[in-house]
Amino acid sequence: MGLKITDLVVQDVRFPTSLSLDGSDAVNPDPDYSATYVILKTNDPSGLEGHGLTFTIGRGNEICVAAVNAIKPFVIGLEIDAIKADMCGFWRSIAADSQLRWIGPEKGAIHLATAAVVNAVWDILAKEAGKPLWKLLVDMSPEEIIACIDFKYITDALTPDQAFKMLQEKASTKTKREAILLSEGYPAYTTSAGWLGYSDDKMWALCQKALAEGWQDFKLKVGADIEEDIRRIAIMRQEIGPDRRLMIDANQNWDVTEAIENMVRFAPYDPWWIEEPTSPDDILGHARIAKAIHPIGVATGEHCHNRVMFKQFFQAQAIQFCQLDSCRLGSINEILAVLLLAAKFNVPVCPHGGGVGLCEYIQHISMFDYEAVSGTMDNRTLEYVDHLHEHFINPVRMRKGRYLAPTQPGYSIEMFSASRDDHIYPEGPVWQKLKEQGK
Amino acid sequence: MGLKITDLVVQDVRFPTSLSLDGSDAVNPDPDYSATYVILKTNDPSGLEGHGLTFTIGRGNEICVAAVNAIKPFVIGLEIDAIKADMCGFWRSIAADSQLRWIGPEKGAIHLATAAVVNAVWDILAKEAGKPLWKLLVDMSPEEIIACIDFKYITDALTPDQAFKMLQEKASTKTKREAILLSEGYPAYTTSAGWLGYSDDKMWALCQKALAEGWQDFKLKVGADIEEDIRRIAIMRQEIGPDRRLMIDANQNWDVTEAIENMVRFAPYDPWWIEEPTSPDDILGHARIAKAIHPIGVATGEHCHNRVMFKQFFQAQAIQFCQLDSCRLGSINEILAVLLLAAKFNVPVCPHGGGVGLCEYIQHISMFDYEAVSGTMDNRTLEYVDHLHEHFINPVRMRKGRYLAPTQPGYSIEMFSASRDDHIYPEGPVWQKLKEQGK
Repeated sequence: MGLKITDLVVQDVRFPTSLSLDGSDAVNPDPDYSATYVILKTNDPSGLEGHGLTFTIGRGNEICVAAVNAIKPFVIGLEIDAIKADMCGFWRSIAADSQLRWIGPEKGAIHLATAAVVNAVWDILAKEAGKPLWKLLVDMSPEEIIACIDFKYITDALTPDQAFKMLQEKASTKTKREAILLSEGYPAYTTSAGWLGYSDDKMWALCQKALAEGWQDFKLKVGADIEEDIRRIAIMRQEIGPDRRLMIDANQNWDVTEAIENMVRFAPYDPWWIEEPTSPDDILGHARIAKAIHPIGVATGEHCHNRVMFKQFFQAQAIQFCQLDSCRLGSINEILAVLLLAAKFNVPVCPHGGGVGLCEYIQHISMFDYEAVSGTMDNRTLEYVDHLHEHFINPVRMRKGRYLAPTQPGYSIEMFSASRDDHIYPEGPVWQKLKEQGK
Repeated sequence: MGLKITDLVVQDVRFPTSLSLDGSDAVNPDPDYSATYVILKTNDPSGLEGHGLTFTIGRGNEICVAAVNAIKPFVIGLEIDAIKADMCGFWRSIAADSQLRWIGPEKGAIHLATAAVVNAVWDILAKEAGKPLWKLLVDMSPEEIIACIDFKYITDALTPDQAFKMLQEKASTKTKREAILLSEGYPAYTTSAGWLGYSDDKMWALCQKALAEGWQDFKLKVGADIEEDIRRIAIMRQEIGPDRRLMIDANQNWDVTEAIENMVRFAPYDPWWIEEPTSPDDILGHARIAKAIHPIGVATGEHCHNRVMFKQFFQAQAIQFCQLDSCRLGSINEILAVLLLAAKFNVPVCPHGGGVGLCEYIQHISMFDYEAVSGTMDNRTLEYVDHLHEHFINPVRMRKGRYLAPTQPGYSIEMFSASRDDHIYPEGPVWQKLKEQGK
């Protein structure tokens, strides 16, 4: 009998990060980094499980849990071989379910839940193959990759044939790039020094530490008060010197014309990109900002909910950096589409990290992109935030500001069961203790 | 002591409409029309309650119920006078909550739930004033209307000052239009004859019935099989004659180039608009289609999730008809923004009806639009579908294919409690009986 999904368990896991203002920004002053955590049980005698999560920032995580429960009947009983035989069909059976799609379509809680569940399936596929996910993807043929992708709504920008040719063109040189990846790792930037809620002293100290560790690229949160922002960017630019890259992130806090006006003030500090200058839905707004502030780049993506939106951001030349999110998009299936679209439009992909588990996820995406899609690390840098990695069985490994390639089978997202049990909301001991303390 | 919200009750109400293929279309073959139904209890001694719902098509309704429960703590205990004193602030306290917005923002289950809850507040306001909602809105001053609107992310297209001037310009002639509205009603079209799952005979019979009732505008569902579509549009055009308006609706089933190609086939039958030709997120795709198929119009909106998306559809000249949805947008607060944007860009608003309760809702929106915003009924027609009205205490009233102005206080969305109790999912008697029958 073949490998089969026999059960789905979903957990509401939350970390009380708002207590230390980790992750604070202009729009998210007090996030509690949380995960809608999915375990797919199988009939494998050795106990093979698929783990996946979607990231939220606290309240509302229970809505994603409800959405995972709605998807549960679609995966229980499925044979892994049948899924592999029609990866796109499997994805569509969830993402395009005729009733569930009404509350999206392909956006919001139901799409976040789709990512958690389908990413857990990808975890099974990688574990079954005995490979880290990036390597599983790299070893798939162009035909196999294409068969994972739902081209619905994107054929006006990218056809299956075009995508196939792009993958084929890069296939013969994958081995060379894999050797570079394994020896050098993948470039990264740190957001850890620049949270909005941090004092100047804390920012200084964290910058010093990061410089000592060898970091080259730094990100600063802005968007609360423009005078305060300018003061802080001056500090950070002075601290890291003129040659390192400095990115700023407004977390959607400006209107379009406001963003253009504010960027005049930031320009003297030479930011490489402005991230989320305005609403994540505003393709035309981003295009207008990008045109006005050139050569500073515009970056967005952590709230960009599907391939149709990214297609338009690329078509409109609205972004110079694609910050796709590993759980906002509907799993690896949809991420493959966006990587290929980005490559076609020549936009570097710099995925959104941070939160809980996002760094663990995105390393696989960028490494596959380097080997099989874009074929380059130029102008690419992967977000790194140093929170909560201790809860993962195979956490990211960093060296001198670079991600090292994961070596363990799977998608690296499995958390220790003790970590999950401690942080189950609201009944876990961490939350019960906070409740007793009146926090 | 003033009027205060003391409790929120939410119900999962579903109608087994899939059994008769009512509402069937190319993307929704078997919808079970459903409502996440909200009751706001108050301290009013006579038992004043606010009722609101968001519409879904079955599976996933329970996710919206979970989302309403997440919003519950934001409204319980609020005084109605405090809400009225800062309508936009109240809306933002829910729609822009720093943690909940992560699972949107302003889209998906959380935004649908926001609509249900905030529309229930509007129901209270109208009932308290003793007016139907359209009249409450019409009687508000331009200042009061502006104070309800969140201009965040739309000021590049419409500023509060511009909106104020638009409202003020129409204010002096409202009375004249109200007299016309009360005597003539508001023009409507029927979708009831053209569901995709209906046989030719059923379509013929329903067309005959609608013609006898005086209907002038008809809509046909297409998008499944092009040859079948052409056969059906030929039947309907022949049946209604060359002078009545015929609209077609593909329910998102085409890619962009496919839509343009298919419309060449439909053009000889003189459709007035093609509705949802492709993904509801594809602003640039709709713009390309609109340019290619002119003078046939492009319509969309029932899946357009917020004011930022509509802003861009207008900016890009991507749609010639705005089919805003009364529960997809985050309540009347956001609908006011879209009505003003549409008027500024001179795009007629023809809201999405059908489902359960949508016709009851949208009549208020179009009547307010006519009196206070657009000032015209030209090129406007309101969707009408004749299902499930019997469950409402104050259902829509139609005369010769026109909506008559509601006269009862409130937003017309209150369902009989017996209807709700019968259809509670899954424990209500209607569903229990179907379960026993093995359906």
